[in-house]
Amino acid sequence: MVLLDGKKTANDIKDEITISVNEMIDLGEKVPHLAAVLVGSDGASLTYVGSKVRACERVGFNSTLIELPETTSEEKLLKVIQDLNGNNDIDGFIVQLPLPKHIDEQKVLNAVNPAKDVDGFHPENFGRMALEMESFIPATPYGILQLLERYQVITKGKHTVVIGRSHIVGRPMSILMSQKGPAGNSTVTLTHSHTKNLSEITKQADIIIVALGVPEFLKASMVKDGVVIVDVGISRVPDDTKPRGYTIKGDVAFDEVSKKSSFITPVPGGVGPMTIAMLLKNTLIARKRNT
Amino acid sequence: MVLLDGKKTANDIKDEITISVNEMIDLGEKVPHLAAVLVGSDGASLTYVGSKVRACERVGFNSTLIELPETTSEEKLLKVIQDLNGNNDIDGFIVQLPLPKHIDEQKVLNAVNPAKDVDGFHPENFGRMALEMESFIPATPYGILQLLERYQVITKGKHTVVIGRSHIVGRPMSILMSQKGPAGNSTVTLTHSHTKNLSEITKQADIIIVALGVPEFLKASMVKDGVVIVDVGISRVPDDTKPRGYTIKGDVAFDEVSKKSSFITPVPGGVGPMTIAMLLKNTLIARKRNT
Repeated sequence: MVLLDGKKTANDIKDEITISVNEMIDLGEKVPHLAAVLVGSDGASLTYVGSKVRACERVGFNSTLIELPETTSEEKLLKVIQDLNGNNDIDGFIVQLPLPKHIDEQKVLNAVNPAKDVDGFHPENFGRMALEMESFIPATPYGILQLLERYQVITKGKHTVVIGRSHIVGRPMSILMSQKGPAGNSTVTLTHSHTKNLSEITKQADIIIVALGVPEFLKASMVKDGVVIVDVGISRVPDDTKPRGYTIKGDVAFDEVSKKSSFITPVPGGVGPMTIAMLLKNTLIARKRNT
Repeated sequence: MVLLDGKKTANDIKDEITISVNEMIDLGEKVPHLAAVLVGSDGASLTYVGSKVRACERVGFNSTLIELPETTSEEKLLKVIQDLNGNNDIDGFIVQLPLPKHIDEQKVLNAVNPAKDVDGFHPENFGRMALEMESFIPATPYGILQLLERYQVITKGKHTVVIGRSHIVGRPMSILMSQKGPAGNSTVTLTHSHTKNLSEITKQADIIIVALGVPEFLKASMVKDGVVIVDVGISRVPDDTKPRGYTIKGDVAFDEVSKKSSFITPVPGGVGPMTIAMLLKNTLIARKRNT
């Protein structure tokens, strides 16, 4: 069993990005500049945005954090986005989700200039991705592809089962892995809440990608020997033995499933760290296209 | 075995559209107006465009056919599209494919205003469809959904196998049938040229959608009893006994597979006629949004 080490791979990718940035500096070019918009002061969102800003510093990007009060109107937020769209110094930007309830999230995401949409959430980018055109691949799916590719997991002709049809993970993964290209050419089955006999399907899978948000959902009895497991779940499970009072669990019963796996992502330290690395990668790509 | 009669269903849909158009006329509203752009004089393209124009007349739409010579430059074609985008009298328009080789097809399709893109080929519409937002569903997939829905074929919780990953049929069908909504909530496996043991997969399918373009590819030995078959293929096979010298064949060996099917589309008269009906439906939708 080989651990698909997201922490190490994310660090490798950040090192590669740092080298690119240093080359830009040597050539006297402008370095990539990522902006993040945060509305309100939700604890988790603050943590996520903070990590993104620190990651920018680590690789030598410029970053700008725009913090707006919880009471910000949709109109005001749309104005901020228009300004970022038109600001040539900003190569890419993200709007941290979730937004306060009085703001229409989809309307806001649709207002982002697709050329600066480094989260890959704009429908035009999603469509371009699905139609195999130049786009921004959403960070989590992009991170999974990179993990599979860098560990040389064979996907071509393999049967991949994706569990969960979310817009940000399950749906794009099902598309990407059945396309041509690296970590592609897989026969993909997309399963979801209406799927019957899920175990019968997962037992046929060479590769399983689980993105449900149900702790330890996938058991050893549901997989065949030699399976490749990508666990996108990340849940806090109460645990009195831990100082924080909880443990982080993925969607896979790791202890038992790992014994049958050829490759498996740990949680934490698997898909999670890849997401920020790929956001940086997308920003670097945006910078190169914005010349 | 029930025949999924596309010819009859398409006529039903055209009748419904005619009723809507008559209501518009009674209310003194402008009727839908579809424009079609044809570059060159390819025989098949002329036939297709002619059918679309006649279908418009049949339901009471206005239609405009813009015929451009084979030698039209890309720049000139893009100018024509800009004019159509800006022409408020035109609710929707299509550019008949294929285009002459000196013109970049994707560039042309991307130039169409997504709000008038009644073929649903613009990446923004494709992304909106995949993300379950308001969009134009490409005519052939839309027609298949309508056939399944109107014949009350149960798709929820069923296993659908799609053969072929083209951008205009296989890919969108695999997305649509696994989404929520009518003719959705299916567990979908998308198969393609790199799929191994295809027969093992198709034998598990409750519903099979074949869009390969290989005459009589799907045999009875590849399906289970009671399967639902949607055949998107349409090939001309040489046949000296026919006055035209050819027979039209689908991707399914109809005679043998139909004996095991609960529902099956014939070729011709199945999916084919639905495509034009759904183009009209999209144009009606465009008209209603364009008010």
